[in-house]
Amino acid sequence: MYNHLDTNTTIVAPATAAGGAVMVVRLSGPKAIEIADRLFRGRQRLADADGYTLHYGRIVDTDNIVVDDVVVALFRAPHSYTGDDTVEITLHGSEYITSEVLRLAIDQGAVMAMPGEFTRRAFLAGKMDLSRAEAVADIIASDSKWSHAVASTQMRGGYSERLATLRNELLRLASLLELELDFSEEDVEFADRTSLHTTLDDIASQIDALISSFTLGNALKNGVNVAIIGRPNVGKSTLLNSLVEEDRAMVSDIAGTTRDTIEATTTIDGVRYRFVDTAGIHTTDDRLEQMGIDRTHRAIANAAVILHLAAADNPEFEEVDYRPEQHYIRVVNKIDTATVAHNDSEVVYISAKSGFGIDTLRNRLSATVDTSQIGTGSVVVSNMRHYAALREAYNALMSARTAMDMGLPSDLLSEDIRQVLHHLGEITGAITSDDILQSIFSKFCIGK
Amino acid sequence: MYNHLDTNTTIVAPATAAGGAVMVVRLSGPKAIEIADRLFRGRQRLADADGYTLHYGRIVDTDNIVVDDVVVALFRAPHSYTGDDTVEITLHGSEYITSEVLRLAIDQGAVMAMPGEFTRRAFLAGKMDLSRAEAVADIIASDSKWSHAVASTQMRGGYSERLATLRNELLRLASLLELELDFSEEDVEFADRTSLHTTLDDIASQIDALISSFTLGNALKNGVNVAIIGRPNVGKSTLLNSLVEEDRAMVSDIAGTTRDTIEATTTIDGVRYRFVDTAGIHTTDDRLEQMGIDRTHRAIANAAVILHLAAADNPEFEEVDYRPEQHYIRVVNKIDTATVAHNDSEVVYISAKSGFGIDTLRNRLSATVDTSQIGTGSVVVSNMRHYAALREAYNALMSARTAMDMGLPSDLLSEDIRQVLHHLGEITGAITSDDILQSIFSKFCIGK
Repeated sequence: MYNHLDTNTTIVAPATAAGGAVMVVRLSGPKAIEIADRLFRGRQRLADADGYTLHYGRIVDTDNIVVDDVVVALFRAPHSYTGDDTVEITLHGSEYITSEVLRLAIDQGAVMAMPGEFTRRAFLAGKMDLSRAEAVADIIASDSKWSHAVASTQMRGGYSERLATLRNELLRLASLLELELDFSEEDVEFADRTSLHTTLDDIASQIDALISSFTLGNALKNGVNVAIIGRPNVGKSTLLNSLVEEDRAMVSDIAGTTRDTIEATTTIDGVRYRFVDTAGIHTTDDRLEQMGIDRTHRAIANAAVILHLAAADNPEFEEVDYRPEQHYIRVVNKIDTATVAHNDSEVVYISAKSGFGIDTLRNRLSATVDTSQIGTGSVVVSNMRHYAALREAYNALMSARTAMDMGLPSDLLSEDIRQVLHHLGEITGAITSDDILQSIFSKFCIGK
Repeated sequence: MYNHLDTNTTIVAPATAAGGAVMVVRLSGPKAIEIADRLFRGRQRLADADGYTLHYGRIVDTDNIVVDDVVVALFRAPHSYTGDDTVEITLHGSEYITSEVLRLAIDQGAVMAMPGEFTRRAFLAGKMDLSRAEAVADIIASDSKWSHAVASTQMRGGYSERLATLRNELLRLASLLELELDFSEEDVEFADRTSLHTTLDDIASQIDALISSFTLGNALKNGVNVAIIGRPNVGKSTLLNSLVEEDRAMVSDIAGTTRDTIEATTTIDGVRYRFVDTAGIHTTDDRLEQMGIDRTHRAIANAAVILHLAAADNPEFEEVDYRPEQHYIRVVNKIDTATVAHNDSEVVYISAKSGFGIDTLRNRLSATVDTSQIGTGSVVVSNMRHYAALREAYNALMSARTAMDMGLPSDLLSEDIRQVLHHLGEITGAITSDDILQSIFSKFCIGK
């Protein structure tokens, strides 16, 4: 249960993982300094020290027995991550010591922080809006250049600013329309309808661009699903090995996330690709085989890229159904074993065994993700919650336009615009609920 | 290879494990601040800032693209862990970001630190002696109250002071004896032989006490090996489960250290016990069974405590050979299933199934380790290297005493005392070699 709605408590949690040379315990809240002073023996009391200072000393238990030699970092409200007084204690990296220090802090009145509670407090204190808070979790999870770049842009607020601009514009329109209501008997139009039309179209196209960016954003954040299909023995496994060659360690690192279907991952030009090796797609009467083929169809449906593999001794490709937004790449493998005409510029000719053509294939994979617009100031949406809210906002906007086209009264028009505002506000947290906050922050790690 | 003998390099490493809310990258060496300033953009240059201060800002790459929002902790020589200028950068806990920051620091001239290199530099800078440096690794590995207490005492230098006192006394004796050599033609004795005898005896008994403390120290540091023996079906597994009941998570945490033989561990009164479940110890002709029995004998030989289990329906104990320093505890199990006379005060009567008697058994296990002398200022040796050096020192001391008893000339006597000094000096690092340092610090984790 996410029950620390009371931000007057002082929370404590380890901010680092176990197993390193040092571990950091983070205390934040109105009594953070008071509690720390009861555990800490240094040259001076933390209560007397300035913010943004470091203090060498010892943590002692209630019997004054030394638990550890530590360095304490002191941050005073509001100049801290959470906005509250915050103390970070760097300990020797022992789980025993860490749990002792947590226990002592809790004995002195601190409570264990829930996942994401430090960031949640930063949000509630107005240190960052909701989309930036969510980006903190994304940046921690980022594992490639572009997933990091997307999260980083979002955390630094380019996205928030864009949304704020849109909301301000919409607020101005809504206010003008609502002014008309006050003067409704006089039948005036403060909001010029032609200019209103133009503005709504402009905002709609901006929201539409954000919605469209989600395909890219999702690919950058979560990786690109690639289904490898083809008849048995065309060399799918060898191709997989060849593609992930430099990245074997990574494979074992992420094992367990979607172990049942994802065979391997590799990073090409800073984008993560996740390969799903599939069974064949031929027709069969065998029930077990049919289950494998069903799974293949699902893998194809979920893939952004379909790599269709054939062998050089039979370079034919059976028909595959795919959607327009999916990338379909045909590959002829084993060109070292059979002579084959390189007569189709769309087809990639490779020898997975010798490595010939693998670079070309990597380039083709890389070309499926257009990273050129990243870092140029344009905003890429990578969060499913934001994507859903943007779609709702877009629908409300379309509804407002229809209302206007139909000459409906300004109060209906204004209500639609308020709906757009509502959905955009959900993204930044201007409009939010405890449920939304709980669902967002419970996915954070402890100590953040 | 431990090849950073050049302490003029600036070293860098992550100081925390991957996977937490934050990660810390540590830079130390003459160019730590200069290198950090090239990556860091804050309100002021670190070069212009005082030690023991914190700085909020951003790490940027060579294209001035923001890698992360960070807090930098600045320590100026000699007031740092290593004694050199040190910068600790707290990043969002992403491995991607951490590796980027490491890469950028290395591009600017830092080198990746070897395991233990920060502590090694602290030792070379005279910030701590060798036994204290070794205690840093022990304190990180400590996983129970007493393993922590032993490492903590050692790290805070109680042990070092004791050794320093002994060495000073021995140095005084050696100097007096060597003075006699300068005046050898005059046949004077600066060192009064009776007083010398008393002093050597006193030092010998102190070293002997340290040697004797190793059994305890080793048990506290590495845990107490307990062999559970007995015929099949006397309930060994149930007893194991009952003993480790509250501690299951810990078991899986340490899995892999000695997975093949250690079945489970539990902590009783702050001491870790490691249980080895064994095969029976009856005689057999079956070769495979004999291998199991051989393994049992090895387990018994390596155990500090032997728990011998019998069932209440046949409460007889076959003879077991054990050494005087081993603890042998007889346990009658399944007292809920058969009536048995509780007629032996040495025997513990239990029902592993119901939990009856388990507390008594825990108390008996706990009594095998006398922790009463810890924390009262007495020194406990827990390091195998120190133990070996102390034994060498003791042998040299005995040799000196024999030399004196035999009236051998003072130069031979003095040479023996120099040997004692040498071995004690190996512990604190007063006398050391690169080989010893390499073997010690290579066991540290990276970043410490």
